[in-house]
Amino acid sequence: MIILKLGGSVITKKEAPEPTLDHENLKRIAGEISDSLPSSLIIVHGAGSFGHPLAKKYRIGAPTSLEELQRKMMGFSIIQRWVKILNIHVCDALRKEDIPVVSIQPSSFILAYNGRIKHADPRIIISYLERGFIPVTYGDVVLDTDENLKMSVLSGDQIIKYLGETLKPEKVILGTDVDGVFDKDPKKYPDAKLLERIKSLKDIKYQPGKSEDVTGAMLGKIKELLLLAEKGVNSEIINAKKPGNIKKALLGQKLKKTIIDGDI
Amino acid sequence: MIILKLGGSVITKKEAPEPTLDHENLKRIAGEISDSLPSSLIIVHGAGSFGHPLAKKYRIGAPTSLEELQRKMMGFSIIQRWVKILNIHVCDALRKEDIPVVSIQPSSFILAYNGRIKHADPRIIISYLERGFIPVTYGDVVLDTDENLKMSVLSGDQIIKYLGETLKPEKVILGTDVDGVFDKDPKKYPDAKLLERIKSLKDIKYQPGKSEDVTGAMLGKIKELLLLAEKGVNSEIINAKKPGNIKKALLGQKLKKTIIDGDI
Repeated sequence: MIILKLGGSVITKKEAPEPTLDHENLKRIAGEISDSLPSSLIIVHGAGSFGHPLAKKYRIGAPTSLEELQRKMMGFSIIQRWVKILNIHVCDALRKEDIPVVSIQPSSFILAYNGRIKHADPRIIISYLERGFIPVTYGDVVLDTDENLKMSVLSGDQIIKYLGETLKPEKVILGTDVDGVFDKDPKKYPDAKLLERIKSLKDIKYQPGKSEDVTGAMLGKIKELLLLAEKGVNSEIINAKKPGNIKKALLGQKLKKTIIDGDI
Repeated sequence: MIILKLGGSVITKKEAPEPTLDHENLKRIAGEISDSLPSSLIIVHGAGSFGHPLAKKYRIGAPTSLEELQRKMMGFSIIQRWVKILNIHVCDALRKEDIPVVSIQPSSFILAYNGRIKHADPRIIISYLERGFIPVTYGDVVLDTDENLKMSVLSGDQIIKYLGETLKPEKVILGTDVDGVFDKDPKKYPDAKLLERIKSLKDIKYQPGKSEDVTGAMLGKIKELLLLAEKGVNSEIINAKKPGNIKKALLGQKLKKTIIDGDI
């Protein structure tokens, strides 16, 4: 089994103020997945512009005052709607390639405590896999049993970590908009060097992606993947914006990447 | 707590060959719900033209031969998509009335055996209710652990029965396109009389709705509600196409209806 993450920055125009799909990338990626379909695959996608601006606007994941509760609940409802619409687009693109996708809505089966998955029932996803379906799940908003927070953002990366440790896949691939993790910010420094392997947070000298992204951008990703590596499941970060990379990664062919590796 | 069912024949143009919303009815009903919102409410809606024609086309719920498996899996995926889109419309209409809805996708947390719910986790719905959200769930396709069937249709009515016996609401209201259950088919016989109370299938002299509806139309509904009444939860069938009826039913005001009553 392979778990493949499609980052929000890959399938949406992440910087757009409104939910905006990256049709072209999505179509190409669906084709690459179809060309190299493993016998067992789970796809997890991020929310990009369908989720992050709204999560920030409604302060989902921040402590909730009584005064803002009603507004925040409506925000939760609106975000749940938009990420579901993104999921429909992703499933449609994959179905056009004859991939038997099944949509799995995290907010229907996951509860969080203090922003982390506290209760989930993986049985349904396992059953779909056994039947030959390709489950497609995604970053979503979920209820939080912490009375202070009440609701939180569940990133696609945390889902990857949860599914990885629960299902023990052979491979976890994270498709992002960079070639992997660098020693400096590659968007600012052209001489930044790709780190081939990360075994701990100490391997990272700069603070990648210390941005306003509600899911913590690259640093959040690496933290989740290091937690996953501790459970014996390694993962690789690749650039899913470069044509051919998803296909190469699924087929186990050589490409630029960073491996997050727990074997110290 | 009240559980309110909105029949597929009420919120969609049920006889349409393509998925077609009944915008006007849906908008009016959302307004009525908002005007008489109980402190705790679950809404369950049917699939109507978003589900039934496709379920029939792909023979979901019928034994699955190996030859048709791939086609059927794609059908499952397509139906799951369309009922999700209907659910988005329903949630949008309710959210426009400032109701804090949360969508609950049955195929993300329910497994069936031989067409009946076998495994489900109601904890999430309970948590949403406790937080003041209005869960909106719906008739969907689900995996079936029966090797013969592999997939089945989960009707909104079966969900009503499941949620009713699990959550023990004060009231279960079924909004349909008729005033209740009649002694003859009211669409054919103008002198048909409304049955005020049904305690067993013997109370029904004709076979109402022996149509091609994959969820068994009115007869299927009554069977589910009699099973629910056996568990001590009574329900009422009302005409949700008549303006004002949903509001009256939610407020406990007098209106034409049939009560399904287990107290013999």
